[in-house]
Amino acid sequence: MTAPGSRRGRRGAGHDTRTQLLVAARRRFASDGFDGATVRGIAADAGVDAAMINHHFGGKEALFLAAVEAPFDPGQYVRSVRPEQIEGLAARLLGTLLPVWDSPAGAAAVGLFRSGLHRDWGVSLLRQFIQRRALAVIVEHLPGDDDERALRASLVASQITGLILTRYVLRLEPLASAPHDQVVALIAPNLQRYLTGTLP
Amino acid sequence: MTAPGSRRGRRGAGHDTRTQLLVAARRRFASDGFDGATVRGIAADAGVDAAMINHHFGGKEALFLAAVEAPFDPGQYVRSVRPEQIEGLAARLLGTLLPVWDSPAGAAAVGLFRSGLHRDWGVSLLRQFIQRRALAVIVEHLPGDDDERALRASLVASQITGLILTRYVLRLEPLASAPHDQVVALIAPNLQRYLTGTLP
Repeated sequence: MTAPGSRRGRRGAGHDTRTQLLVAARRRFASDGFDGATVRGIAADAGVDAAMINHHFGGKEALFLAAVEAPFDPGQYVRSVRPEQIEGLAARLLGTLLPVWDSPAGAAAVGLFRSGLHRDWGVSLLRQFIQRRALAVIVEHLPGDDDERALRASLVASQITGLILTRYVLRLEPLASAPHDQVVALIAPNLQRYLTGTLP
Repeated sequence: MTAPGSRRGRRGAGHDTRTQLLVAARRRFASDGFDGATVRGIAADAGVDAAMINHHFGGKEALFLAAVEAPFDPGQYVRSVRPEQIEGLAARLLGTLLPVWDSPAGAAAVGLFRSGLHRDWGVSLLRQFIQRRALAVIVEHLPGDDDERALRASLVASQITGLILTRYVLRLEPLASAPHDQVVALIAPNLQRYLTGTLP
């Protein structure tokens, strides 16, 4: 992730307006959260009209994805595995995400993940990104009341972020080189317990 | 973690010799691995006699712990939960490690974990630290042949590093604020499957 304020440029040209908006968005999303940050406030910080956010990004969600520099939207893949069918969801989720993480875009995402952890504002953006762009797509389909669903989602995050960390960052063998179908078979039962199992 | 080479000082005084040895050790452990790096080679890089490593640190293992700047040796805690009794090991492990991670020394360890992930040499030291100081204490007691035990250990790492990341770095709720006994009850069954369950 590029540090907020590190890409300040001259104002006026479209490219500069876009950059100003990204810098302001990173600051606001990190400090106020996605819901707390307003399109109007970000535009004011950037010194441009709020209409410029729609013009350059198409809206607040797209501005957020651009601010985090996400190489892809994980929500798109999560939606593609039909999270409304919770039986067998863990295996479909891992079977879909492993090839993405092993692709060039996935390598960029892993790099983003590593660099995001290094600074507090990066952690804040990363937390919101995981919650809003990945977990939120699943959470509504999980069993239990709101508290239980949120707990299940954070347990899911503990296994999935740990898998990314162990396989792609620390590269601990033999998990780092295991073929996709073996990783799915090893980890899906644990992930499925977090999704739908009986929790204490 | 302090970058290799970032604390070069004047030679001669004991403090400087110690610093030279730490700088050389970080470089060697990161590039050659713990087993590949030799006490003699590290001392030569630091421009001092190999006996200085025993004098200042007491040996290669202690030099490694100091080079990684570990605030505690996780192996000490892992050994205290009697890893040779594999039944119920996951619950004892989590029940012992959670209070450590929530202590001031644990906060320092989490900080080390975050900063270690940021650079390739930090990742290399972190990987060896996790393998040698934590997993190695458990791995010999796990069921299966060498390959299966190594696989179990890397699966254990995927859950434990993910728990540290989710609870202490990303601070995803409600897992971040859940009391220790709840976290143990939620995660121990999954961890125990990696330790002793039937794997595909």
